[in-house]
Amino acid sequence: MKKGRILTGHRPTGPRHLGHLVGTLESWARLQDEYECYFLIADWHVLTTDYSHTQRIQQNIRHVLTDWLAAGSDPERSTIVLQSGVPEHAELALLLSMLVTVARLERVPTYKEQIQELRLEPSLGLLAYPVLQAADILIYRADTVPVGEDQMPHIELSRELARRFNSLYRNIFPEPQGLLSTAPRLPGLDNRTMHASWGNAIYLSDDREAVRRKVLSMYTDPTRIHATDPGHVEGNPVFAYHDLFNSDLHEVEELKARYRAGKVGDVEVKERLARALNDYLEPLRQRRAEIVGRAHLVDDILVQGTARARLLARETMEKVREDMALAYSRGARYKSSGHQLG
Amino acid sequence: MKKGRILTGHRPTGPRHLGHLVGTLESWARLQDEYECYFLIADWHVLTTDYSHTQRIQQNIRHVLTDWLAAGSDPERSTIVLQSGVPEHAELALLLSMLVTVARLERVPTYKEQIQELRLEPSLGLLAYPVLQAADILIYRADTVPVGEDQMPHIELSRELARRFNSLYRNIFPEPQGLLSTAPRLPGLDNRTMHASWGNAIYLSDDREAVRRKVLSMYTDPTRIHATDPGHVEGNPVFAYHDLFNSDLHEVEELKARYRAGKVGDVEVKERLARALNDYLEPLRQRRAEIVGRAHLVDDILVQGTARARLLARETMEKVREDMALAYSRGARYKSSGHQLG
Repeated sequence: MKKGRILTGHRPTGPRHLGHLVGTLESWARLQDEYECYFLIADWHVLTTDYSHTQRIQQNIRHVLTDWLAAGSDPERSTIVLQSGVPEHAELALLLSMLVTVARLERVPTYKEQIQELRLEPSLGLLAYPVLQAADILIYRADTVPVGEDQMPHIELSRELARRFNSLYRNIFPEPQGLLSTAPRLPGLDNRTMHASWGNAIYLSDDREAVRRKVLSMYTDPTRIHATDPGHVEGNPVFAYHDLFNSDLHEVEELKARYRAGKVGDVEVKERLARALNDYLEPLRQRRAEIVGRAHLVDDILVQGTARARLLARETMEKVREDMALAYSRGARYKSSGHQLG
Repeated sequence: MKKGRILTGHRPTGPRHLGHLVGTLESWARLQDEYECYFLIADWHVLTTDYSHTQRIQQNIRHVLTDWLAAGSDPERSTIVLQSGVPEHAELALLLSMLVTVARLERVPTYKEQIQELRLEPSLGLLAYPVLQAADILIYRADTVPVGEDQMPHIELSRELARRFNSLYRNIFPEPQGLLSTAPRLPGLDNRTMHASWGNAIYLSDDREAVRRKVLSMYTDPTRIHATDPGHVEGNPVFAYHDLFNSDLHEVEELKARYRAGKVGDVEVKERLARALNDYLEPLRQRRAEIVGRAHLVDDILVQGTARARLLARETMEKVREDMALAYSRGARYKSSGHQLG
């Protein structure tokens, strides 16, 4: 017996990196034991911030899915969904758009932030983003949504929309609960949060040599000029990585002690990290190579998962149409046939 | 060879009245000779202003279609579409929502008017209304849209969205042209514009006696107290109706002369109008009785027309997905299968 149903996912913005792995993908892999999981590739959501380079989306969808599978998302136990392959998301979003005010959406913190960040006049799609996200969740009647702190206001809106629908029509949607990630944000190569567009990421698709080169370029204690200077371990991303990825705890403790004492060079610490990180990534990398080697696998998983998801989405929409008394709900049609006009 | 493709329609708000007949339905019936016509029952649009009495929508859909058919919309030559039966409208609206700014939509005159009229916080659905309307038109690649003056800003937005899509992706949408109705607005029983919610309408489903009673209650020259007072013909809705509906021009001229001279009572003028109007409506009323008599006819026309429309809508969306490089466009999928990942 599963605890409930999860909906979570990513926008296909490019290959996944270490930050995705430790922040979400490893936790998704574990959650599959306890929950029925729907993993959504939210390609329509990409359009809310970039609608003019859509050619890339196709490639990114396959990149993301390949990385997910390598990191343990299991299409036998969970359902992989491509958003644009289930147009029912759009239909439900349209109906939900009647139940929320413009003013409510303008108060969503991510909307305000994105307007400032993009320095663009916001599109209707950007304003409506959280409503589409609510539809993504509610269409599968998911009750649990693993999210980062910044996404919690979107979950709150999804809960409001579920309540609003349930009280206006019929009680069909669970109020989804946010499941906050406990993983700390992973620092990137430059010690800022790892982020693809900041050029500070290690990708799951990087080979051993690429990982080594990147690790050797990592930001470390800036106050340390010579290998004989005592160094700082705290706030040093190289040691944060050792703590996370190096399974040889003895080696980590020894390196920290020598670093603090000015008895080890940065290059040695980094070479050992590169080896440990590459070892950590090795099983994932092997699974990845297998997946990439099977030409149609990713497309097949995408098509099959999406088809399975669509069955549930259609079932939900059938209920929604019937509850809202919109046409083509089966009940409404039969009833109307007996109805006297005139 | 047809001149082009028309998309037009009504929201299923209730039975159609004389204002609909002379303003649009008679012109639709004629346009079928020259254009390929799509007549849309826009049930989702009703939700933008009233989402809480949806049970009525089902009945109103059948009322509207029965009246359309009685007034000459011909399902053999034209396509009757139920909006909620073609979810592709929602999908296209979602994609178009990425291509228009919130600010642009806030400037649409009907939006500003409706906010004032409803005295409600506007819903996202109300703000997005003209985008859904653009999708209604573009999904059938219609080039001509019969509209009233107040709807011209919506056509302009549809043209902008067509241009925007065509220039960003591929040229698939014609820029729709508004076809302005030349019919003057029909006065209602109280001499204001005929409007269902003002209680001043004569319905196409009213029987002879109902029409007669309503005509006898009509507003007429308020300055005339006695049948011997000289009356005003101009601005008098009873005579406006005689001009429109009474085919006996001699009788009309004679009544006008006697009315101006104070030589006829209002009751006689109205009784003659009631008879003339009932004669005018008789063929429509007979067609209507036939339609109502055939139990499943309206539902069958609705289902068949919508199914036919959906084929075209799907064809358009297939193009749109391919042009935007969204998944499940056939081209994108085949291309990607050959694509090397990793």
